[in-house]
Amino acid sequence: VSALTVSSLLERLRAGDRRACARLISIVEDEAEGTTEILNELYPLMGRAYRIGITGPPGAGKSTLVEKLAQECRSRGKTVGIVAVDPTSPFSGGAVLGDRVRMPALFTDPGVFIRSMATRGGMGGLATRTKEVCDVLDAFGVDYILVETVGVGQVELDIASAAHSTLVVLVPESGDSIQVMKAGLMEIGDVFCVNKSDRQGADRLVMAIQAMLELKQVRNGWMPPVVKTSATDGTGTGELLARLDEHRKYLGDSNLLVARRKSSIRAEIRELVEARLRREIWTRTDVSDELSLLVEKVFEGGSTPYRAADEILGLVQPDAGQEVREK
Amino acid sequence: VSALTVSSLLERLRAGDRRACARLISIVEDEAEGTTEILNELYPLMGRAYRIGITGPPGAGKSTLVEKLAQECRSRGKTVGIVAVDPTSPFSGGAVLGDRVRMPALFTDPGVFIRSMATRGGMGGLATRTKEVCDVLDAFGVDYILVETVGVGQVELDIASAAHSTLVVLVPESGDSIQVMKAGLMEIGDVFCVNKSDRQGADRLVMAIQAMLELKQVRNGWMPPVVKTSATDGTGTGELLARLDEHRKYLGDSNLLVARRKSSIRAEIRELVEARLRREIWTRTDVSDELSLLVEKVFEGGSTPYRAADEILGLVQPDAGQEVREK
Repeated sequence: VSALTVSSLLERLRAGDRRACARLISIVEDEAEGTTEILNELYPLMGRAYRIGITGPPGAGKSTLVEKLAQECRSRGKTVGIVAVDPTSPFSGGAVLGDRVRMPALFTDPGVFIRSMATRGGMGGLATRTKEVCDVLDAFGVDYILVETVGVGQVELDIASAAHSTLVVLVPESGDSIQVMKAGLMEIGDVFCVNKSDRQGADRLVMAIQAMLELKQVRNGWMPPVVKTSATDGTGTGELLARLDEHRKYLGDSNLLVARRKSSIRAEIRELVEARLRREIWTRTDVSDELSLLVEKVFEGGSTPYRAADEILGLVQPDAGQEVREK
Repeated sequence: VSALTVSSLLERLRAGDRRACARLISIVEDEAEGTTEILNELYPLMGRAYRIGITGPPGAGKSTLVEKLAQECRSRGKTVGIVAVDPTSPFSGGAVLGDRVRMPALFTDPGVFIRSMATRGGMGGLATRTKEVCDVLDAFGVDYILVETVGVGQVELDIASAAHSTLVVLVPESGDSIQVMKAGLMEIGDVFCVNKSDRQGADRLVMAIQAMLELKQVRNGWMPPVVKTSATDGTGTGELLARLDEHRKYLGDSNLLVARRKSSIRAEIRELVEARLRREIWTRTDVSDELSLLVEKVFEGGSTPYRAADEILGLVQPDAGQEVREK
C-alpha cells in the first residue's frame, strides 16, 4: 500500500466514506505496510465509541442478540460497528461465515458497519487485531462497537480487557453452574444475559448466576445485572442495552474509565515495542542462521533450548548474554 | 528456592520420588528461581512420553473421559500424567476444582500423576506453563500425558500445537455442524470422539463430523477417526486409546514427529529469548519511568502510542530508534 493511497484513504475516511473505512480496516488487520501510520494518524479521532465485548458458549445465540442490540442502537439514532471474531481456520485461513450471511437485516443499513475477523493461531504476538480494527471504527465515528467472540479462551479474555463492558450470554442449555464457573464466565461479565429465556430452566439459571455473583466480591461497587432476553423476537434487548449504558455511565462516574484507558495505553505501547524488537531480532540473517544451527544441535542432544537461548541472547545483546553465562 | 534444594529435588525426581516431581512442577509453573536450571537439567530425560491434548466445549464430559483413558493406559501397564487446565479466575487466582475433586478413582494410584493448572490472563508471554509442566512429567518418566483444556481459544490452540495428538470431544448436545465449525474444532482434531453417545443425535453428529472432515483436505495422509464413547460406563474408551496410539505410530512412521519436534524446539528457543528480553527491558528503571511519563502524555493527547513506542525503542536500542524516527 503506497503512502499516497494511505493518505487518500485517510482523507476519505474522515469524510465518512465507508469503503475507505473497510479498506483501512483490511490494511490494519493484515498489518500491511502503512498500518502504523494509519493508526497514528487516526489516533486523535479515537476514544468516542462505546466498546462492548459479547461472549458466551457456542450456540447461545450471540449473533442474533448482537443483531437485535444493533437495531436497538439504531432505533435510538446511534450508529454501530459490529466485529465478529471467529477462531482460526488453518484450512480456510479466514472467517467461516461471511458478513453477508450474518445479520441480513443490518447489512444494507448505512448506519451499521459489519466486519468478520479470523483469529490467528501460533505463539507470540497478539492473537487478533481486534483492538486495532475497533480503533479504526472508532475513528470512523460509530457510537457503539459490538465485538462478538465465540467461546472463552485467551483471545476472549484479551478482547474483554480491551472493551469497556463485557456482556456474557448464556442459555438454559449452558448446563449447571459448575460448568459456567469452569468456563471462566463469571469473572469477566459486567452484564449477564440469559438468552432463549422462553426455554425451560431460564429462571433457574438467572437465580444461579445471581447467587454466584453474590458469592463473589462486588467489583468496585458494580453488581452485574442479569437480563432475560429472547433475541429471535427481540424480547429484553431494550432493557439489555439500557443496562449496558448504565455500566458505561458507572465507569465514567467512578473514574474507572480513566484508569482503564491508561492501562490500555500502557499495554499498547509495550506491545508495540515488543513487536518491533521481535521483528528486528528474528529477521537478522546472523540470528536466523544461528537459530537453525541451534535447533539441529538441540534436536541431536548436543544442547538444550535454555543454553541455545543464551547463545542467541549473546548475539543480540552481547553484554546481557555474557552476564547470563557467567552466573 | 536455593540451588541446593533444586539439586536435591532433581536427584529425588530421577529416583522416582513423586513429591519431588510435584515440587519441581510448582517451581516451573510459578517460574520461580531455578526454573531454567531445572528444565535444562531435565532436558535429556524428556522426549519419551506421548502427549495428548484433549479439548471440547464445557459439559462434554472431558474430565470423565480423561479418567477412563487413564484407566485404559493403566490396564496396559503404562503410567500416566494428567494435566487439567482451567481458565484464569481473577477472583480465586487458581483452578476452580481441586485435584482431589477430579478423578477420585485415580487419585490414590501411584502410576498416575494428576495436576490442575490455572491459565493466566493478560497480554504478553505464554498464557500457561502447560508445556513446561508436561516437560517435568515427561522427565519423571510417565508414558502418557493427557492434557485436558476447557473450551477452545488461543490457549487451547497453543496446547494443541504442543501435544503430539489432539483429541476433540463432542456431545450430541454440542449443536449443529455450523456451531462445531465456528468453534474451530474441525481444524485441530487428530482424533474425534462423540461422548455421551447413548443420547439422541449421536449417530447424526458422527456422520456430520465425518462429512466435514471429508470436505477438508486430508492432512498429510491422516484421516481423523471418529469414535463413539460413553465415558461414564467406559464404553469405547479402549478403542479411543487404540486410535490415539495409531496416530502416534503414524506420526513416527511419516517422520512428522521429527518435524514437529524441531519446530517445537525452534518455538521454545524463540520464546525463551523473547521472555528474557521483555524482562530486561521492562525492569529497567529508566525505561519504566519513561513509559509512565509517555502514558500520561498519550492520555492527554500530546502523543500517540506509536510515537511513544518509538521513544522507548530509542532508549533500549539507540540505533534502531534513530532509524525509525528518521523514516
